[in-house]
Amino acid sequence: MKQFAVIGLGRFGSSVARTLAKMGYEVLALDNSEERVNDIIEDVTHGIQIDALDEHALKAVGIRNFDVVVVAIGQDVQASILATVILKEMGVKYVVAKAQNKLHGKVLQRIGADKVVFPERDMGVKLAHALVSKNVMEQISLSADYSLVEMLAPAQFVNKTLAQSEARNRYGVSILAIRRGDQMIISPGANQVIQSGDVLVVIGKTEKLQLFETVEI
Amino acid sequence: MKQFAVIGLGRFGSSVARTLAKMGYEVLALDNSEERVNDIIEDVTHGIQIDALDEHALKAVGIRNFDVVVVAIGQDVQASILATVILKEMGVKYVVAKAQNKLHGKVLQRIGADKVVFPERDMGVKLAHALVSKNVMEQISLSADYSLVEMLAPAQFVNKTLAQSEARNRYGVSILAIRRGDQMIISPGANQVIQSGDVLVVIGKTEKLQLFETVEI
Ligand SMILES: Nc1ncnc2c1ncn2[C@@H]1O[C@H](COP(=O)(O)OP(=O)(O)OP(=O)(O)O)[C@@H](O)[C@H]1O
Ligand SMILES: Nc1ncnc2c1ncn2[C@@H]1O[C@H](COP(=O)(O)OP(=O)(O)OP(=O)(O)O)[C@@H](O)[C@H]1O
Ligand SMILES: [Ca+2]
Ligand SMILES: [Ca+2]
Ligand SMILES: [Ca+2]
Ligand SMILES: [Ca+2]
Repeated sequence: MKQFAVIGLGRFGSSVARTLAKMGYEVLALDNSEERVNDIIEDVTHGIQIDALDEHALKAVGIRNFDVVVVAIGQDVQASILATVILKEMGVKYVVAKAQNKLHGKVLQRIGADKVVFPERDMGVKLAHALVSKNVMEQISLSADYSLVEMLAPAQFVNKTLAQSEARNRYGVSILAIRRGDQMIISPGANQVIQSGDVLVVIGKTEKLQLFETVEI
Repeated sequence: MKQFAVIGLGRFGSSVARTLAKMGYEVLALDNSEERVNDIIEDVTHGIQIDALDEHALKAVGIRNFDVVVVAIGQDVQASILATVILKEMGVKYVVAKAQNKLHGKVLQRIGADKVVFPERDMGVKLAHALVSKNVMEQISLSADYSLVEMLAPAQFVNKTLAQSEARNRYGVSILAIRRGDQMIISPGANQVIQSGDVLVVIGKTEKLQLFETVEI
């Protein structure tokens, strides 16, 4: 079983740590704020107050033995960069680092971060897509051209079959699954009738999907 | 065409504003930091330095005429709550507010926010899932039981047909689409051969999907 350490227990880091612990993984949670450590200590395997720039302290907690270390320090860009360098120098195999912006991300990549993440930027993109159509609940960019969305069935399609909805012919998108309450209908057939409250999983070219998302009644 | 205003141009708010503007919508970007406003002004329709707690200033920019106002103030929980109240009192139809934590979220909901978002928490959950299997790129929770993931085809399945992969029979999951370079194969047939580098869109019960995600070579 993989072992994880998370350094920096802000909103993002603590969510990563708690989710991994909930999935049954061993998680060491580190922060230089005692309060932040105390907040999370009951939800993770270990929590220790530590300065991520203190190499001796990192050695003492055996940071090298963790399969993945997540650096979720935000505001203090310098600390995030230095911590990442120290961890890679110490031989940590896989370091994930959270970036504040593009430039910070480039620096992190150059100094050896194995994965760089931009949580606020990415969620901002997702919210923007969701707002343009109030039906859209989640969105994934699959490639430069294609996206996938989870969306409420537009009122216009309710009580129509998939064939009648003309999702494919008119909008050029495909309905891959329908969630109806607790039930999940995977690869629905052309005769499947869309019901009010259905949640659709739809794939298509991003521009076409945008038209489908914003379809009016 | 809907009109959007975003108050608070941190990493999250500025990403929301930029994405909406890129999609062709009219976006008013507001922050009490002049620097933050200047950073974004070329990417949005209008940018104005404003204190979100200054009702007169909000009136002066015609905030009531916007279809959606996003309150993306973070650290300053009090300002986020007061701004949300003021906007709802002024009659803004749809206010989205960013919450720091559960309690903040509950307060925002009670005072009338139409949608409350937790970007750091949600991206933390997503990263945790992605880390448990390095193949997973994106993840959506569709219901209490079902999830959908975008993942690299596990090495074990390369050069096998979907039927041979036994995704359905052995793992109980369904492969809804395959991205192969620029090409997107939607609803692939049982005889489709999985190639190295393929990205799969897979749906299934969350626990079963977790087994599929972490399949070893
Ligand atoms: N040198 C350091 N060593 C250990 N922890 C640190 C260090 N510097 C900052 N931290 C911790 O990192 C955490 C995250 O930092 P900060 O709140 O600045 O980031 P953020 O990006 O705004 O967080 P989020 O958006 O996820 O809430 C804080 O709890 C802070 O105490
Ligand atoms: N009263 C206010 N009026 C207008 N803007 C404000 C007000 N208070 C804070 N802001 C702005 O909100 C923005 C976001 O605030 P802050 O950086 O504290 O949040 P955050 O959650 O850490 O942001 P992110 O994680 O998205 O970067 C800042 O640019 C700040 O200047
Ligand atoms: Ca807290
Ligand atoms: Ca912050
Ligand atoms: Ca900036
Ligand atoms: Ca943040």
